Amino acid sequence: MPKISAKGISMPESPIRKLVPFAEAAIKKGRQIYQLNIGQPDIKTPESALNAVRNHNIEVLAYSHSAGFEGYRTKLAGYYKQKDIPVESDNIIITTGGSEALLFAMGTIADAGDEVIIPEPFYANYNGFATASGVNIIPVESTIETNFALPPIQEFEKLITPRTKAILICNPGNPTGYLYTKEEIDQLAKIALKHDIFLVSDEVYREFTYDGATHFSIMSIPELKDHAIMIDSVSKRYSMCGARIGCLVSHNKEVIHTAMKFAQARLSPPTFEQIASEAALETPQSYFDDVIEEYTTRRNILISGLQSIEGVKVATPKGAFYCIAELPVADTDDFAKWLLEEFHLDNETVMVAPAAGFYSTPNTGLNQVRIAYVLKKENLERAIEILKVALKEYNQ
Amino acid sequence: MPKISAKGISMPESPIRKLVPFAEAAIKKGRQIYQLNIGQPDIKTPESALNAVRNHNIEVLAYSHSAGFEGYRTKLAGYYKQKDIPVESDNIIITTGGSEALLFAMGTIADAGDEVIIPEPFYANYNGFATASGVNIIPVESTIETNFALPPIQEFEKLITPRTKAILICNPGNPTGYLYTKEEIDQLAKIALKHDIFLVSDEVYREFTYDGATHFSIMSIPELKDHAIMIDSVSKRYSMCGARIGCLVSHNKEVIHTAMKFAQARLSPPTFEQIASEAALETPQSYFDDVIEEYTTRRNILISGLQSIEGVKVATPKGAFYCIAELPVADTDDFAKWLLEEFHLDNETVMVAPAAGFYSTPNTGLNQVRIAYVLKKENLERAIEILKVALKEYNQ
Repeated sequence: MPKISAKGISMPESPIRKLVPFAEAAIKKGRQIYQLNIGQPDIKTPESALNAVRNHNIEVLAYSHSAGFEGYRTKLAGYYKQKDIPVESDNIIITTGGSEALLFAMGTIADAGDEVIIPEPFYANYNGFATASGVNIIPVESTIETNFALPPIQEFEKLITPRTKAILICNPGNPTGYLYTKEEIDQLAKIALKHDIFLVSDEVYREFTYDGATHFSIMSIPELKDHAIMIDSVSKRYSMCGARIGCLVSHNKEVIHTAMKFAQARLSPPTFEQIASEAALETPQSYFDDVIEEYTTRRNILISGLQSIEGVKVATPKGAFYCIAELPVADTDDFAKWLLEEFHLDNETVMVAPAAGFYSTPNTGLNQVRIAYVLKKENLERAIEILKVALKEYNQ
Repeated sequence: MPKISAKGISMPESPIRKLVPFAEAAIKKGRQIYQLNIGQPDIKTPESALNAVRNHNIEVLAYSHSAGFEGYRTKLAGYYKQKDIPVESDNIIITTGGSEALLFAMGTIADAGDEVIIPEPFYANYNGFATASGVNIIPVESTIETNFALPPIQEFEKLITPRTKAILICNPGNPTGYLYTKEEIDQLAKIALKHDIFLVSDEVYREFTYDGATHFSIMSIPELKDHAIMIDSVSKRYSMCGARIGCLVSHNKEVIHTAMKFAQARLSPPTFEQIASEAALETPQSYFDDVIEEYTTRRNILISGLQSIEGVKVATPKGAFYCIAELPVADTDDFAKWLLEEFHLDNETVMVAPAAGFYSTPNTGLNQVRIAYVLKKENLERAIEILKVALKEYNQ
């Protein structure tokens, strides 16, 4: 039997997916499961995007430009300008999801053995992209006590070595829901400039901010011109997760030139999904207003519901649609499996994502879960009720 | 200015794309260019595929399964069975193009510094995927004199080291058009088994075989169960290059399990394009018969046309839609630029792909070009006429 690569063996399994076999078994037993574990919104995709695909007039489904449709990039630059992100079409490479943009970014700035500092907990797939790229993630811990705010800047500085190539943030954060303030972004910019390293910001949840808070992009800082790389995606903004359209954005011409070589090797991003994404740019503000209102309601239900459960601690999210909750259990991995394998309330149960997979420091976040509030109000309320009963039963 | 990675700097530029600026300048001067340089067919995409996308009834464009639609994989397995490739849906991972399948394969079987042996000339983007994966390509030369047949098996054995993880072939071959015989595939199978290494076969041109020759897949050899990894794509089969749908296929469960971890990290392949690809499986045999007839005509025009030019040597392709031609010039890179920058015949010129980019041995293939026969007959005839005049003028 020929050998699998060491890289392949060490590729992490998704912490969200590893419960799937248990969920499948529960479904076979007739259980209904409230899925609090995944970030797949139930929000409808804008009609403009879906119709543009219905009305396509393609005869030969040919390769598109490796950087994506010129027309789409031009309109996308217009969208960014409205968001105080002054970029032109040639600062943008359209990618197959934010996923590919992250892979291109890592390949462009880091070699095998190089280091990228990331506040943890962080989006679990960063682990996968880092492993695939041979890059070492150096975590800097943020805590539930501070709502997962930016760790003190000296904590970052302690970790910087000659192999540090970048700091990577997710803003607003998955899984924390934390929205960095302008002051926090300024602090990160200063440290990136001082040490001449990249600042990579995953801003796919830009639209999802609550309580009147506004998102501040690393791309809005002129001094960071050569140091800032933004990752973006249409997945969450337009509830188009299946489109797999994202982009890498930078003012640094060398970054764009290099990322383009990775883009050319894989030829082009998918055509129909670019058509959908370009049309989605016409989505009226009212769509987002409705979505934000809906998510605000859901967040409020979830947070107050969780706070009403004895022993549960939760960080109130200001953005995205996740929160991290600390549960009165020693091991949420065991608890999450138990919820699917043994527990039910009137034949219903809930699925949560154990948070340990969002940390790279071993034995961290063991009593935490990530909860996504992508369910309708009534379902969220019921899910919290189930969780409450389950915690009581589990702890007896 | 922060530093670009060594990997990023060494990422090769596509040999096909690097002439693009010269072509753009020529177009600005009003030149018409016959593009013999790219493998973008002009053949129409099957209506079934295009209509399936027009008729979609999606409301939420959600993530699909990381391995691709279960329904699509099941039907795809049915297609393979018809081609004497006995696989089931769980032997298949749907990828974003053959490109991603190649990246997953390299990540699954090779670590940084590991080696993959590839007969050269080979598809230029293998260089890009290898660089991105940190893998070293070890070329074994095939020659125009033998029509680019499989090099003697002892030439492979000489190159095998403890770091050799696989032999990678493209069958039928891009850029050579060579179709490996069953005997050649058997020889490769034996060497893979003897040295316990993988045999990876890129079979995206499976349908395109001429003169009654048939394709023989590595997947048809039962003994190669654990050693064979097939790469495939809908791009050429259905003239759906823009779909970016491919797949990785293997009977080796460890390979599938590991490649799935790479697949899960990037979440899923694009949804609309999977709908198109699933519908494309209904394409009637008559479509392929027409396409093969058309390509056979084009190939015959191209090959006899090239053979009629003094000093041109050409390997007759048995598959795919490319050939390698040796021209009576010292440096086809210079010649290809000259065609775009200086030459024209009644304001028309041709664009060819210098072949050096398809070799990894330095200073090889310098007097060769790759020509794709993806143009209509009349245009191919005209292109050959232009090339003939151009070669005469260039050599004066």
